[in-house]
Amino acid sequence: MTVEYREFYRGRAVMITGGLGFIGSNLARALVDLGADVLLVDSLIPDYGGNLFNIDGIADRITVNVADIRQQSTMNYLVRDRDVIFNLAGQVSHIDSMRDPYTDLEINCRSQLTVLEACRNHNPGVKVVFAGTRQVYGKPASLPVDETHLVRPTDVNGINKAAGEYYHLVYNNVFGVRACSLRLTNVYGPRQLIKHNRQGFVAWFIRLAIEDRTIEIYGDGSQLRDFVYVDDAADAFLRAGASDTVNGEVFNVGGNQPISHRHLTSLLVDIAGSGHVEYVEWPAEKKAIDIGSFYTDSSKFLRTTGWTPAVTLAEGLRRTVEFYRQHLNQYLEPRETPGSPTRQPRWGGRSERV
Amino acid sequence: MTVEYREFYRGRAVMITGGLGFIGSNLARALVDLGADVLLVDSLIPDYGGNLFNIDGIADRITVNVADIRQQSTMNYLVRDRDVIFNLAGQVSHIDSMRDPYTDLEINCRSQLTVLEACRNHNPGVKVVFAGTRQVYGKPASLPVDETHLVRPTDVNGINKAAGEYYHLVYNNVFGVRACSLRLTNVYGPRQLIKHNRQGFVAWFIRLAIEDRTIEIYGDGSQLRDFVYVDDAADAFLRAGASDTVNGEVFNVGGNQPISHRHLTSLLVDIAGSGHVEYVEWPAEKKAIDIGSFYTDSSKFLRTTGWTPAVTLAEGLRRTVEFYRQHLNQYLEPRETPGSPTRQPRWGGRSERV
Repeated sequence: MTVEYREFYRGRAVMITGGLGFIGSNLARALVDLGADVLLVDSLIPDYGGNLFNIDGIADRITVNVADIRQQSTMNYLVRDRDVIFNLAGQVSHIDSMRDPYTDLEINCRSQLTVLEACRNHNPGVKVVFAGTRQVYGKPASLPVDETHLVRPTDVNGINKAAGEYYHLVYNNVFGVRACSLRLTNVYGPRQLIKHNRQGFVAWFIRLAIEDRTIEIYGDGSQLRDFVYVDDAADAFLRAGASDTVNGEVFNVGGNQPISHRHLTSLLVDIAGSGHVEYVEWPAEKKAIDIGSFYTDSSKFLRTTGWTPAVTLAEGLRRTVEFYRQHLNQYLEPRETPGSPTRQPRWGGRSERV
Repeated sequence: MTVEYREFYRGRAVMITGGLGFIGSNLARALVDLGADVLLVDSLIPDYGGNLFNIDGIADRITVNVADIRQQSTMNYLVRDRDVIFNLAGQVSHIDSMRDPYTDLEINCRSQLTVLEACRNHNPGVKVVFAGTRQVYGKPASLPVDETHLVRPTDVNGINKAAGEYYHLVYNNVFGVRACSLRLTNVYGPRQLIKHNRQGFVAWFIRLAIEDRTIEIYGDGSQLRDFVYVDDAADAFLRAGASDTVNGEVFNVGGNQPISHRHLTSLLVDIAGSGHVEYVEWPAEKKAIDIGSFYTDSSKFLRTTGWTPAVTLAEGLRRTVEFYRQHLNQYLEPRETPGSPTRQPRWGGRSERV
């Protein structure tokens, strides 16, 4: 079936946690266009992805409430009278989760209880769509990975995201707080954090290409991934938010077809007209935790909502490169003004999420 | 293969978290017999199962340290120089976890990070065996349930136990803290809490039978469960603790064959020579969360360690009834002296874990 939401969101009171972040802000733009009453909640924790520039151009048509979803009384207040909550707030760095597992637990696991308890006690009629992740699957037993694949995360972040997701399903099934989870694969596009390389490797590669730097690929670059352009991810959230057949379920939301790192980076360098690709040996400690190829089967979500990715990788990369070329200074540290001598990032040469 | 541990534990420094509880104290007895250096850690939180009478007779051959595994500095100290940690501390009530999800999260999820971080930083060579639960599977998709069944807990307790288990696997795989998890089904036997009915329904049924009260069965009692006598569960922990082939893996630890509630209770009443069974209508709210029949396939653990349950249900029930007949007053509230007029339990007439 196909979920039609063009009219659904008009005048609808929605809230987006993590609303100043990458996916949240792109979703907010779509909701503003649909005439929704949009409340963004974001903690603006440095390095987590929230950026006030992400709402440039729509700031006067939305409400921004700076708050931390770990704070129960705040959440109790904010969830009231909302029709739909898009629950996207989270800590997304895997490396950080292994260095400081407690903070990851507080933000990705405990905070989900905070949001859900607020709903259960103060707005049980609300609909919640949770931003899950393909990370919960860990190293795939077979490809493509569908929702019958075991959940066996390979890091603390994946575990806490899995627990956060399970809470949503239990609150749906036991307390009737309608909820579902979208397990997103690699989402890319404008407004993603590129200050450091701990949030999605595509964004980091794009930055390197724009800055005419070297993109390092471990091994021969044959490992496969699937990618979703952020507007397609936003469309997935909008469909899930407007449908009750998705309640209590998890859905993969991934790209149409897998693409190798080799292919991806050569396409990116072509489109950007700058940057270089270099193939290097696998560092032993990275090889040890490598999950090999990973791509998903999203047909369950297609069947249930009619969603299908509309933006090709080439087109998505083109739009993304163009966006960052235009607004690069809004996404760097104040001292990293474009045009200043290129320096090596202090986090190492390559993103973690590959 | 068969794990032989008769010599393994002699002089070995072991720690049992939740060591004054049901399974922990029975495991401690076995370890004392094997000549181990046994440290029990228990918070003695009222209503959680810790009971000093559980170490009656072995108290002078073990060390008891009252502490909460949520306390990082305490755990950092206690894990030092231990060879094996049996990590059994937990909050086991499902009803409690739905009433107060945060406490359940702290005890079953966050505290596991505390134990594992202590090991990673202060005793990375230790071996950890975690007490997992069949609850992580939720309602079975097919029977018997083996380890390839999806993890999809039906309540907050099951989610937090799943997260706690995943942490062990990740610390094994990433940090080399050797760990595995035993997913226990319904364990029964002496030394289980029977003050209230929120910890395992067999113990509660046994209390009702001993007190010549009525055991209420919902529906026709045809739902199946499998049961493990506590000495067999202790044997499973000892095998896992002495083996390195189990590291990084999860194992079902269940009974030899499933038995219906009808059969179980009639056997129990026969053995006890007291008590009555009454079949009543399913309360609607219980029926809604009923998982139907559930029993496990433990052949993976059998194959890996040679473990097999040795105590039949009839024999286990006989020993358990005998134990509680002899020591009932040690397992009741002070005011509930045996022989006083029977009163209805204030928690409702029947256990939650069925």
